[in-house]
Amino acid sequence: MRAFLVILALTTCSFLRAETGYDAWLRYPPLDSATMPSYSRLPAVVFAPGKSTVIDSAKQELVRGVRRLLGRTLREESGLPEEDAIVLITYDALPGVAVGIEIPSQQVEGSYFLKALTRRGHRLLIVAGADERGVLYGTFALLRRIALHGEIENLDEKDAPYAPVRWTNEWENLDGSIERGYAGRSIFFDNGHVVGDLTRARDYARLLASVGINGCTVSNVNANPHMLTSEFIPELARLAGAFRPWGVRMAISIDFGSPKEIGGLDTFDPLDPRVIAWWKQKVDEVYAAIPDLGGFVLKADSEGRAGPSTYGRTHADAANVIGRALKPHGGLLFYRGFVYNHHMDWRNLKNDRASAAWDNFHDLDGKFDDNVIVQIKYGPIDFQVREPVSPLFGALHATNVAIELQVTQEYTGQQRHLCYLAPMWKEVLDFDLHADDGPTPVKALVSGRVFYHPTGGFVAVSNVGLDANWLGNDLAMANLYSFGRLAWNPDLSARDAVQEWTRLTFGDDVRVVDAIVGMQLESWPAYEDYTGFLGVGGLTDILGVHYGPGIESSERNGWGQWHRADEHGIGMDRTVATGTGFVAQYSPPLAHEYESLAECPDNLLLFMHHVPYTYQLHSGKTVIQHIYDSHYDGAARAQTFPERWRQLRGRIDEQRYQAVLARLEYQAGHAMVWRDAICDWFAKTSGIPDARERVGNHPDRIEGESMTLDGYTVEPITPWETASGGKAIGCPQPSCSVSFQWKGKPGWYRIAVQYFDERDGVSSYRLSAAGQLIDEWLANNDLPSDKPNGHTSTRRTITGVALRPGDGIRIDATPDAKDRADIDYVDIVPNLQQGETAILRR
Amino acid sequence: MRAFLVILALTTCSFLRAETGYDAWLRYPPLDSATMPSYSRLPAVVFAPGKSTVIDSAKQELVRGVRRLLGRTLREESGLPEEDAIVLITYDALPGVAVGIEIPSQQVEGSYFLKALTRRGHRLLIVAGADERGVLYGTFALLRRIALHGEIENLDEKDAPYAPVRWTNEWENLDGSIERGYAGRSIFFDNGHVVGDLTRARDYARLLASVGINGCTVSNVNANPHMLTSEFIPELARLAGAFRPWGVRMAISIDFGSPKEIGGLDTFDPLDPRVIAWWKQKVDEVYAAIPDLGGFVLKADSEGRAGPSTYGRTHADAANVIGRALKPHGGLLFYRGFVYNHHMDWRNLKNDRASAAWDNFHDLDGKFDDNVIVQIKYGPIDFQVREPVSPLFGALHATNVAIELQVTQEYTGQQRHLCYLAPMWKEVLDFDLHADDGPTPVKALVSGRVFYHPTGGFVAVSNVGLDANWLGNDLAMANLYSFGRLAWNPDLSARDAVQEWTRLTFGDDVRVVDAIVGMQLESWPAYEDYTGFLGVGGLTDILGVHYGPGIESSERNGWGQWHRADEHGIGMDRTVATGTGFVAQYSPPLAHEYESLAECPDNLLLFMHHVPYTYQLHSGKTVIQHIYDSHYDGAARAQTFPERWRQLRGRIDEQRYQAVLARLEYQAGHAMVWRDAICDWFAKTSGIPDARERVGNHPDRIEGESMTLDGYTVEPITPWETASGGKAIGCPQPSCSVSFQWKGKPGWYRIAVQYFDERDGVSSYRLSAAGQLIDEWLANNDLPSDKPNGHTSTRRTITGVALRPGDGIRIDATPDAKDRADIDYVDIVPNLQQGETAILRR
Repeated sequence: MRAFLVILALTTCSFLRAETGYDAWLRYPPLDSATMPSYSRLPAVVFAPGKSTVIDSAKQELVRGVRRLLGRTLREESGLPEEDAIVLITYDALPGVAVGIEIPSQQVEGSYFLKALTRRGHRLLIVAGADERGVLYGTFALLRRIALHGEIENLDEKDAPYAPVRWTNEWENLDGSIERGYAGRSIFFDNGHVVGDLTRARDYARLLASVGINGCTVSNVNANPHMLTSEFIPELARLAGAFRPWGVRMAISIDFGSPKEIGGLDTFDPLDPRVIAWWKQKVDEVYAAIPDLGGFVLKADSEGRAGPSTYGRTHADAANVIGRALKPHGGLLFYRGFVYNHHMDWRNLKNDRASAAWDNFHDLDGKFDDNVIVQIKYGPIDFQVREPVSPLFGALHATNVAIELQVTQEYTGQQRHLCYLAPMWKEVLDFDLHADDGPTPVKALVSGRVFYHPTGGFVAVSNVGLDANWLGNDLAMANLYSFGRLAWNPDLSARDAVQEWTRLTFGDDVRVVDAIVGMQLESWPAYEDYTGFLGVGGLTDILGVHYGPGIESSERNGWGQWHRADEHGIGMDRTVATGTGFVAQYSPPLAHEYESLAECPDNLLLFMHHVPYTYQLHSGKTVIQHIYDSHYDGAARAQTFPERWRQLRGRIDEQRYQAVLARLEYQAGHAMVWRDAICDWFAKTSGIPDARERVGNHPDRIEGESMTLDGYTVEPITPWETASGGKAIGCPQPSCSVSFQWKGKPGWYRIAVQYFDERDGVSSYRLSAAGQLIDEWLANNDLPSDKPNGHTSTRRTITGVALRPGDGIRIDATPDAKDRADIDYVDIVPNLQQGETAILRR
Repeated sequence: MRAFLVILALTTCSFLRAETGYDAWLRYPPLDSATMPSYSRLPAVVFAPGKSTVIDSAKQELVRGVRRLLGRTLREESGLPEEDAIVLITYDALPGVAVGIEIPSQQVEGSYFLKALTRRGHRLLIVAGADERGVLYGTFALLRRIALHGEIENLDEKDAPYAPVRWTNEWENLDGSIERGYAGRSIFFDNGHVVGDLTRARDYARLLASVGINGCTVSNVNANPHMLTSEFIPELARLAGAFRPWGVRMAISIDFGSPKEIGGLDTFDPLDPRVIAWWKQKVDEVYAAIPDLGGFVLKADSEGRAGPSTYGRTHADAANVIGRALKPHGGLLFYRGFVYNHHMDWRNLKNDRASAAWDNFHDLDGKFDDNVIVQIKYGPIDFQVREPVSPLFGALHATNVAIELQVTQEYTGQQRHLCYLAPMWKEVLDFDLHADDGPTPVKALVSGRVFYHPTGGFVAVSNVGLDANWLGNDLAMANLYSFGRLAWNPDLSARDAVQEWTRLTFGDDVRVVDAIVGMQLESWPAYEDYTGFLGVGGLTDILGVHYGPGIESSERNGWGQWHRADEHGIGMDRTVATGTGFVAQYSPPLAHEYESLAECPDNLLLFMHHVPYTYQLHSGKTVIQHIYDSHYDGAARAQTFPERWRQLRGRIDEQRYQAVLARLEYQAGHAMVWRDAICDWFAKTSGIPDARERVGNHPDRIEGESMTLDGYTVEPITPWETASGGKAIGCPQPSCSVSFQWKGKPGWYRIAVQYFDERDGVSSYRLSAAGQLIDEWLANNDLPSDKPNGHTSTRRTITGVALRPGDGIRIDATPDAKDRADIDYVDIVPNLQQGETAILRR
């Protein structure tokens, strides 16, 4: 009966779910009739000797994939038949089936080869893996090849993962919330327990396995000690069962204070024999329930978490006490390098959060056990849109390390903005830290290839949620896909990865593929342009939701994401000569380059140096003009996204088309919020005007506070730069209206209303021109603030409005709950006349 | 606030409803950027002088349509502006706006012209109507022109409806059920009342108006007298308000016994002064509440309905008593010509239901008042797939008539089968009854053009329901669209109508348009081929749901749909010489043709004559071989539909793609049920084998009763021809299984399971081959029977199964409620090898 329900779910899901994005890149759409014949000679039989849950998953996936792609059901034979066959097999079993096949000498975990050959008159298609995971990865590779219309008649391909650690972290809490998650609640936990229905967990494990990911930490690094209690361990064991068939080792985050919190001890000193014994006993207990647990992730001594400093012990002491308990079970301990003091004195210009990881860990190199991995964020700060590579990767020569990336777009638009991160990751992974003689790119350092560590690799914080499309935005799934593909093979180009993803996710229409690949590749540079600049970092609401602009929130507090902008200049001086000295953490060639104002690359200038706004960049522009120009350029680039997407209408299923369009339209508007906030703040602070006279000069803009108000009142906005002119208007009564007379020339216009869509109510707006109702909408987006500010500022654009001089423009608004239907301004510009595309949601 | 909600619904519906089919042919998708510039000079202003609810609808529709098609919001001006403008105007107001425009001499209701011209330096686009409906129809014509990418710069077009009556009838009951409705429950009534939310009613009125329909009878012809009670009239008035803005006159069906049923009289004798007074008073009361009511529809003396025969009065007496009450209000009385005795003695070979309409009405010609219309079904029987044209159309020279067609596919597949009826309607409408000197095609007769009646025209039973796509099948909407277009202009070709509909409904992709138009045009001939033949009629379950095969249900009862098939021959002898004499109802040239066995067209042969099975047709085939061949041909044609539809994947939105595919796959299977039932019955009855050895010869078929049964028991099926071999197997216990060994050659096969999907439970099935689960499904289709028979027989086809000799094939079934998971047979045939398309729902 269970098998019945499972298969029924699989056969009906693609129909019922249609194109919700749930199937992601594993849609396996039927090949068209022109392509189908290329696979007519695919064997009818699949044979997979031996017993293995993972190989059984591979076999089922092959049967399902071939059924959906080619409309055929492969026969699952229990012995090698006297006919053509696909053979799923591990290297060690291969000689028993087909003698004389050369087995690759490199047999790392997960490696595989695919080979078409003939034996005794029968064509065999061998999918052989060094281990059961290798068979699974080879099977996904074969299905991917067919889905991408690749040749299989003369198949001869082998592949191996670049590094042993290819993990995701999920910052999910036991109550079902997700820290920095932007796609709904947890797929693992709810209300203090593991959820009853693990379908989503199983399907997520399958997605991860399909791109070679082999581990998943399911709980928040800000860990809940309750997870290690004896009551909870059986729940974890049930959850691990959802990952096991797909060769994904489940892991959990732990709290270092556990011996005291839940163990009944009065200490969690890692050198205390009782603590050592407690960890040993606890780990044994966990492994008795989950023999293949991947291990633990530990965030200690960071942002208020318990850590070894309480007892004057080192991070190595902390890591090793747990690592040693894990060792007999083959478990790993990921010790996060994200350790810093968040109560630093901002007045001391020598203080520097960027230095913290290196300061904390470089002396401990060689002190960590061989099943401990120091997990290091890619930059020295915290997932900013642009950071230098963390120098710590170059400093740990005798320690396992892993790089921590983010699929969840904490600081890069939270999936409301398209921001394809693989190009950034590629820059980081290919960056040579000059840690040794010869090339030492980060990818080689973290995978242990430079200093020959036993383990290490790639970790991404993913934070998928209950939204049908996993990340809340269909296009954001390119990040998850590309992370997996790059963790397997960091030499893959970002373009190749996203092109592959696009074809699997949206099909082969060349206009669709070109448009999506183009937008994805432009999205990170665009996001950097309209939010950050020159490596400055920290321009968002650092103390809160990390989303919209909030320039001063970085300053005058202990969190250390300082940019030091004032009326004279901007940038953190991290030089040895005059600054914090952080630059010295890099190897001499890099330290020299960063130390030198003349040699420091423009895009990291303000990370390394403090300069006046008039400082001239290598580009020839002054810093201040670069700020203005890059923000206008980036926002203009974002404006093109909805228009380019609209060209795909009818070439993409309507459901995903509309969902993505809504996000891209929102992004186009919010990019302007960012542009104006940053330009206005720096124009005011520096006192230097935009040479091109755009900043602060909006002839087409009518401020709410300058309109005729009926019920509305003017209110200041905090921070001031997130509203045009620093003010907006809010409605403190059941309904209000606002109006003005328009004085331009007759023509077709585009009216944009900049308003604030708070999460504490659903206000409604109606816009009329010359007494005619033109548009109406609800402020019902789920944005991360209940205040009018840069997180909630939203643009509604109404195209194709015919205006005549003297027309009255009027907005009637009905506030709801605590949302006061705030309005910032209205912007009226001529409409495009030729080839103009309609707003499609009308 | 009301305006707010209305517009909000309009602007969001296309987004929220995406492509559910709700928007039907009024989708107004944005033009692509290549087409958009053709309309850049469209005026920005719309001006509609005067006050008219209908013209206001036209204006709103124009604004909405242009906004969606072109992304622009037209300005609604209250005076003619000093600039280019679109002017919506009636002929009488035209001189005040633009002097010197030639107004058409023909000014029938609803006529209009569209003209681009220049006045005082401004370009005016005039949409002028003889009346407010004309303005509305002209506006829809303009929007249709833009949606079809037509030229508008030099617009000069005029059009007028062919006939004044262009109505639909909806057979909806007050309890919310719909007689012969196949798309969910009523959009007008529920639980004895008019529904609270009239959105669907309003949107339906808009759909009707968009194709020129100007009247709608909202209630079942088998009428509920309660509708005329004083309590109910206010509810009707509210419903009429939903139709009024779209120029659609609402009407209701009435019960002739009302004076007695609800009036407190002891009689309903139409000549009784109290009855006359009652009708007068009642009609006045209704019109006081609904001044623009279209009138009444009356089914009297038919199928048990009360009628004038009770008192020995004529149909004219009955019609006129009500007609005279309606007359002062401008109301029409539609008196249904569908009057016959359903207790006829089937043993009397002179009895003939086909003669009834003519017999009942031809003597009354000239006796009906001029606001009475005799509403006559297109054929003399009842909406069969093939009938001769009703001779009554030619017999009423001094009486208003209307033709009654069916959009709801009562006898033509009930929207589960694709059956585009416009080609049939065209044959009927163009058919010359030789009723007078010169041409007298039916379209001219019913529109009053031959004998110059004051009114008359076209009525279709539509029966839309609460299903989002109105008729339950997106493709069936072509029938509603084409009915309206043909009622407006019966000279339009069926191909042009469906091509227009396809482009508006599914877009301009030439592969999509060609495929859909092709299937639509082939669908009625295919349906006729696999269900009926040679005009025989009556092969379905006449006594019940009028759906699947049920050959003998026509015979040996009083309903008169006899085909007289026995072991010797088949057909109703309706000749004057030896038969019922029906043929004499036609004018001499036609009567001569039908009377003559030699001259009677093949496709009506068995409607007019009784012949032996060996009778040779004009085609050269015998009758019996024609039966076999046409059913195999028709079923084969239906097999092509899903395959052709699958070629459109990705070119149609996924939601409608999947919904239609499911219907077409079902149809392909059910066409074979029809084929086999009819071929088997006639092979057995005639004793004459199929010359091509297909009938009864199914080498690939394994009967359920010949398999190894585990729990299943063999049971006879009624009627026997609806199961292969007359038997099936049913499971009388909680679960059963059935198996057999397969003995064919190795290869790829297609396995079809013929089972019975009853409406009284949802059984589940699992199919395994060689021990491997291949497919599983639920019997959850909503088919119109709770028995295993020709209504419920359903085919599940599993493509691409690799079979080897000796494989065990096994079905495990779990019955549910009263559905016993019946199975008829399994059919195994080689799969297509090249260019084969997968079953997409996997």
